[in-house]
Amino acid sequence: MSFWDNLKWTEDGLIPAIIQDASTGRVLMMAWMNRASLEKTLETRKTWFWSRSRKKFWMKGESSGHTQTVKDIAFDCDGDVLLIQVEQVGAACHEGFRSCFFRSLDGTVGNFRETEARLEAPETIFGRK
Amino acid sequence: MSFWDNLKWTEDGLIPAIIQDASTGRVLMMAWMNRASLEKTLETRKTWFWSRSRKKFWMKGESSGHTQTVKDIAFDCDGDVLLIQVEQVGAACHEGFRSCFFRSLDGTVGNFRETEARLEAPETIFGRK
Repeated sequence: MSFWDNLKWTEDGLIPAIIQDASTGRVLMMAWMNRASLEKTLETRKTWFWSRSRKKFWMKGESSGHTQTVKDIAFDCDGDVLLIQVEQVGAACHEGFRSCFFRSLDGTVGNFRETEARLEAPETIFGRK
Repeated sequence: MSFWDNLKWTEDGLIPAIIQDASTGRVLMMAWMNRASLEKTLETRKTWFWSRSRKKFWMKGESSGHTQTVKDIAFDCDGDVLLIQVEQVGAACHEGFRSCFFRSLDGTVGNFRETEARLEAPETIFGRK
């Protein structure tokens, strides 16, 4: 069985991809891939995703310059989740944080706190490239 | 806005939860939670999930003893993914590996390799507790 034979896609032909910073281990984001975006990711070594809302391919960093270079692609025991190690340029999050997971639950009553500093203001990120 | 107001659930009332080893940064697994399983997770500080195939709650480790004690719960910019830091007892994977992501793509032709050693045979894990 090849890598491809082990993968299970949703009814819409998608698989979630967890993106992890290869050097720090920080989980940066999760996004969805279809088969074509995974093939494109393997071919270019940059991450490509499928946007469910916009129904289009996108390369991470195509407008921001915050690209991800792929170092490793792992898949889970059920074959329905990918874990991709990357070298991240700048902020992975469109809100200007290194990681999209920049907020954590604080205590038990439902408050939350920011756990990292913003690298860049969102308005400076886009349309720059 | 509270933590809860920031979360977005699928049409089925679910949210994916990425589980990360708090001490090593290794991503262990991804599973789905509904609101009740997240509430139970907060209340007990053990991870509870919703099984889409079995349509039931389950506590990670309820039959294997391989429980996860919650150290932190983060959520992403879109509020539709959770990242949970845990202390993992034993193997997180039902196949006996520490992480469910124990296989990586090897080269470009579709081969893969195991990237960690099995901790325990699957047949010894279940029904032991």
